[in-house]
Amino acid sequence: MTSGRVRMSPDGRREQLLTLGVRLFATRSLEDLSIETLAEEAGISRGLLYHYFGNKQEFHTAVVQRAADDLFAVTAPTGDGSALEQLAGSLARYVDYVAQNYQGYVSLLRGAAGGHEGLREIYEASRAALTDRLFEGPVAAEAAALGLTDTPVVRLLVRGWAAFTEEVVVEWVRDDRGVTRDELLATLSASLPGILAPLRES
Amino acid sequence: MTSGRVRMSPDGRREQLLTLGVRLFATRSLEDLSIETLAEEAGISRGLLYHYFGNKQEFHTAVVQRAADDLFAVTAPTGDGSALEQLAGSLARYVDYVAQNYQGYVSLLRGAAGGHEGLREIYEASRAALTDRLFEGPVAAEAAALGLTDTPVVRLLVRGWAAFTEEVVVEWVRDDRGVTRDELLATLSASLPGILAPLRES
Repeated sequence: MTSGRVRMSPDGRREQLLTLGVRLFATRSLEDLSIETLAEEAGISRGLLYHYFGNKQEFHTAVVQRAADDLFAVTAPTGDGSALEQLAGSLARYVDYVAQNYQGYVSLLRGAAGGHEGLREIYEASRAALTDRLFEGPVAAEAAALGLTDTPVVRLLVRGWAAFTEEVVVEWVRDDRGVTRDELLATLSASLPGILAPLRES
Repeated sequence: MTSGRVRMSPDGRREQLLTLGVRLFATRSLEDLSIETLAEEAGISRGLLYHYFGNKQEFHTAVVQRAADDLFAVTAPTGDGSALEQLAGSLARYVDYVAQNYQGYVSLLRGAAGGHEGLREIYEASRAALTDRLFEGPVAAEAAALGLTDTPVVRLLVRGWAAFTEEVVVEWVRDDRGVTRDELLATLSASLPGILAPLRES
């Protein structure tokens, strides 16, 4: 080797650029995440980036998809503890993820809700994957304790609970109003059984 | 009088046109609600409409504000029955409102979430007014029974509950999945006490 620079495969290079894109996305909105910014941070030409990502929209889609994959991975149930403890753990990691990636996360929510079809698809698939896990993952084994029977009305309420959680967490990160992280986590963890309780009682 | 036509004041005429605009908004999105459509339905010239509403954006703002006022009026607690019964009644009228005004309501949510500032302001003010009523209106007298103490954490959870309710109702109207209106209303009514229950127990 005549240079300290490591030669990477095209896939490895694209991967590295995508990781950098996701990191930049944490602290800026999609509108502020340009190919130019990435080129500057990565120290490579815009032309090369267009080679890897096609155009700005494809770049944004790739970054958002990667961010959604990261969120899914980071909130995976650990398999340790009761269903409720695992749910509490996943929620804690969701809260920390939103806090650390606030700008990008909020701009994704706005883009998806505002009718940007590509973002909406990724967002919907991500939310479906996150909530399906309640019915299918390790948590599902004890799901009955939480009221998580797989019926249409429970699916509808879980969808609503996802909107509840998102709203509460995004608002809390924006302005915590003196509510501590522990208080937040305690109420979030209890909210799903709370919403489903009337179905268990009937 | 030489004609059957009733002469109206400019305010009365604007009022009448706004009522028609809100009616049209029920079954179409904001993008499809043009001054041209209103002119056609009202049988008057576009020029006259611009005289009353300035421009398309002002027309949309006026329609959305009126729709928000209607929603606030239609969901007012009646003052009869327990806090929970009054909440159930307000929720039933909210569900029927969304069902009857689905297209416009969803386009308002998208516009507000997507960063249209004028719509966002009206939407936020409307939601604040609807949820403030829980702390201030006739329901408030018995609010403790629902866990509605006016603290930052309860305010945050009520905000989340509003997002929950909106998501569940909009989704149910879009596709009811075989869930009946009664089932929906029973779970919605119980959801607020359910979300707040952990705070009452601690």
